Amino acid sequence: MSIITLTTDFGLVDSYVGAMKGVILGLAPDARIVDISHHVPPQNVQEAAYILQGAAPFFPRGTIHVVVVDPGVGSQRRPIAVQTSDAFFVGPDNGVFSFLLAPLAGGGRETGDHAQTRAIHLDSPGYWLPFVSRTFHGRDIFAPVAAHLAAGVAFDALGTAIDDPVLLPFSQPRRLADGSIRAHVAHIDHFGNLVSDLPAAWLTGRRWLFRVAGQQIDGSVHSYAAVDPKQLLALVGSDARLEIAIRDGNAAQRLDVGIGELIEVYPA
Amino acid sequence: MSIITLTTDFGLVDSYVGAMKGVILGLAPDARIVDISHHVPPQNVQEAAYILQGAAPFFPRGTIHVVVVDPGVGSQRRPIAVQTSDAFFVGPDNGVFSFLLAPLAGGGRETGDHAQTRAIHLDSPGYWLPFVSRTFHGRDIFAPVAAHLAAGVAFDALGTAIDDPVLLPFSQPRRLADGSIRAHVAHIDHFGNLVSDLPAAWLTGRRWLFRVAGQQIDGSVHSYAAVDPKQLLALVGSDARLEIAIRDGNAAQRLDVGIGELIEVYPA
Amino acid sequence: MSIITLTTDFGLVDSYVGAMKGVILGLAPDARIVDISHHVPPQNVQEAAYILQGAAPFFPRGTIHVVVVDPGVGSQRRPIAVQTSDAFFVGPDNGVFSFLLAPLAGGGRETGDHAQTRAIHLDSPGYWLPFVSRTFHGRDIFAPVAAHLAAGVAFDALGTAIDDPVLLPFSQPRRLADGSIRAHVAHIDHFGNLVSDLPAAWLTGRRWLFRVAGQQIDGSVHSYAAVDPKQLLALVGSDARLEIAIRDGNAAQRLDVGIGELIEVYPA
Repeated sequence: MSIITLTTDFGLVDSYVGAMKGVILGLAPDARIVDISHHVPPQNVQEAAYILQGAAPFFPRGTIHVVVVDPGVGSQRRPIAVQTSDAFFVGPDNGVFSFLLAPLAGGGRETGDHAQTRAIHLDSPGYWLPFVSRTFHGRDIFAPVAAHLAAGVAFDALGTAIDDPVLLPFSQPRRLADGSIRAHVAHIDHFGNLVSDLPAAWLTGRRWLFRVAGQQIDGSVHSYAAVDPKQLLALVGSDARLEIAIRDGNAAQRLDVGIGELIEVYPA
Repeated sequence: MSIITLTTDFGLVDSYVGAMKGVILGLAPDARIVDISHHVPPQNVQEAAYILQGAAPFFPRGTIHVVVVDPGVGSQRRPIAVQTSDAFFVGPDNGVFSFLLAPLAGGGRETGDHAQTRAIHLDSPGYWLPFVSRTFHGRDIFAPVAAHLAAGVAFDALGTAIDDPVLLPFSQPRRLADGSIRAHVAHIDHFGNLVSDLPAAWLTGRRWLFRVAGQQIDGSVHSYAAVDPKQLLALVGSDARLEIAIRDGNAAQRLDVGIGELIEVYPA
Repeated sequence: MSIITLTTDFGLVDSYVGAMKGVILGLAPDARIVDISHHVPPQNVQEAAYILQGAAPFFPRGTIHVVVVDPGVGSQRRPIAVQTSDAFFVGPDNGVFSFLLAPLAGGGRETGDHAQTRAIHLDSPGYWLPFVSRTFHGRDIFAPVAAHLAAGVAFDALGTAIDDPVLLPFSQPRRLADGSIRAHVAHIDHFGNLVSDLPAAWLTGRRWLFRVAGQQIDGSVHSYAAVDPKQLLALVGSDARLEIAIRDGNAAQRLDVGIGELIEVYPA
């Protein structure tokens, strides 16, 4: 029994997600299908990558993750699949799997877990639907490829190895000479919490001040409930990164900030 | 193992969809339940039919499709089920299954695939929940009927054959004497793409101009990425109909058009 | 095969729900996961309880219901589980299970169905994820506990019995000396229908007038379709309580009322 997850920007109003599930169940009747999100902002490849990264590590080994945020559908962009030591990934070659593939891009193979990561160009139409539309490869290519993988087809049979997948830059925090750190808002979640690109490990061992959108927060806390309702706070979020939030409130709305916003971190 | 799909206007905030799933799993523990959409606009039977039509053909033979967009619940409108050569359909007799039943309405039985299509009035309360509310037949009639079908109850045991199901008119494209075509916006999807009622087959063999909401598009393209970002375009969508879209943008919002809007198509 | 339901305020944009499902499937590969709602208004424990109450009774015996509406996550609030004669419930000790536990709070054990209801403090970290974040106990505690229950771990192994769970007050209707009734809007559903706290049983045997937000409704009807489109009506809803609605319209918007709004009920 294989698990297939879906992450798309299709929303839940149309028939698109249902059609993909129908295709999968026709080819792999025992597959377990799990929705990660269908509310990726339209055409936002970075957000799709971010959301996938938050969920994929918690699935059992061998899970097949399908991502369809695909503004280049029908153009020359390649359909690809990636195999890691843990899981399979199927989707467009537009950078959405950069977080898996970037460690390989420095030249030479990485050691350790990444040594097993491989990417293929999905160029075996025998594993697609017989008729492939120009605008919906999620249904016509990615869903059937994932279903064939779930049903036991070998990864290598689905396409040809590639070593030049598209890689997207993601924001990175920086340490400055004066000991301060420049981080960024990497994601805004459903609660309006500002999830940063700053790993919690950078913050251990001392006390810090956080500045964002003209507001200053003195030190971090251990839970939302550690401050009064509607107060701004900093804490380590569930993905072990710095997060700025408002207790029982929406920080993104109140501070009027978006993805990419600077977060300055100073020694207290 | 049977598949049961759900298409409703219940949204995902309330307990309604969950209650239906609980009822199904109590009666058919092995059924696979797949959501097609719960975001049909409230009481919009045409949209429900449109969405169902987009997904149902991609499910395996024997799938049971439940639709609950049911403004007449509790009134004299009948609960019905339809069997085709491919699938089963369960829901209110309000026209939501017109696309299945219309071919039969011309008098006499159709030949070919449609020859096997049959409709029944669900009038066997033994296959419903013991207590049937006035306002939620999705939970009390349609879910248990679908579950009994999935568990092996014969279609004919669930009700009495009818030959007068409610049929709704759907917009149709027209060819004019001057060679032009009058089509309509049949659906607006999550991306704001305008899906028309014009089959792609009408467009083969020559080049066309498209006019909608005062805008003109000269010719169709093969993919969204074939034009510059934010440009208007025409292409054949994933259901093989003419579609008007804006690359990386929302055509419905920018053109300020809704379902039913005229699309004029002229020989170029 | 166990069923695990999920009710959260996580929304469907982020990776949170997906991560919980990944954790569950890793520990209980055969569990059936059913979403009840992920659109509980943020931090609204009462709404979560209301939605859970609407769906839980329709699931098969032994179903495990997980609720994560948890503004106190990471603070001293306890993680708990409740076992009733019908089902299991897992979530924070913040009152979300009051409807199960309130009958026990009067002192002494209830008789009948409630006699079997028991609550435990989840204090056995061996059934949690190895690393527990401060902000996402849904993923790190509640999902793995539910999965272990589904996989056969005994309820009592998961924690220590408690008799002081947090209980929240819910609005109650009152009969006045003049024979009238004061009820309240307890929930507003996706259609804008006003679901009250007044059981239908209070209304049997005579005719009533209903007043809400300056509007008066003379008598109740049996279905939405019993009045003209856009007319206000009163009926008994699917959970056997008084409901105020507008046929093919949104009563909450038109009357501009919210949860808690007074509904006056007079003998006609």
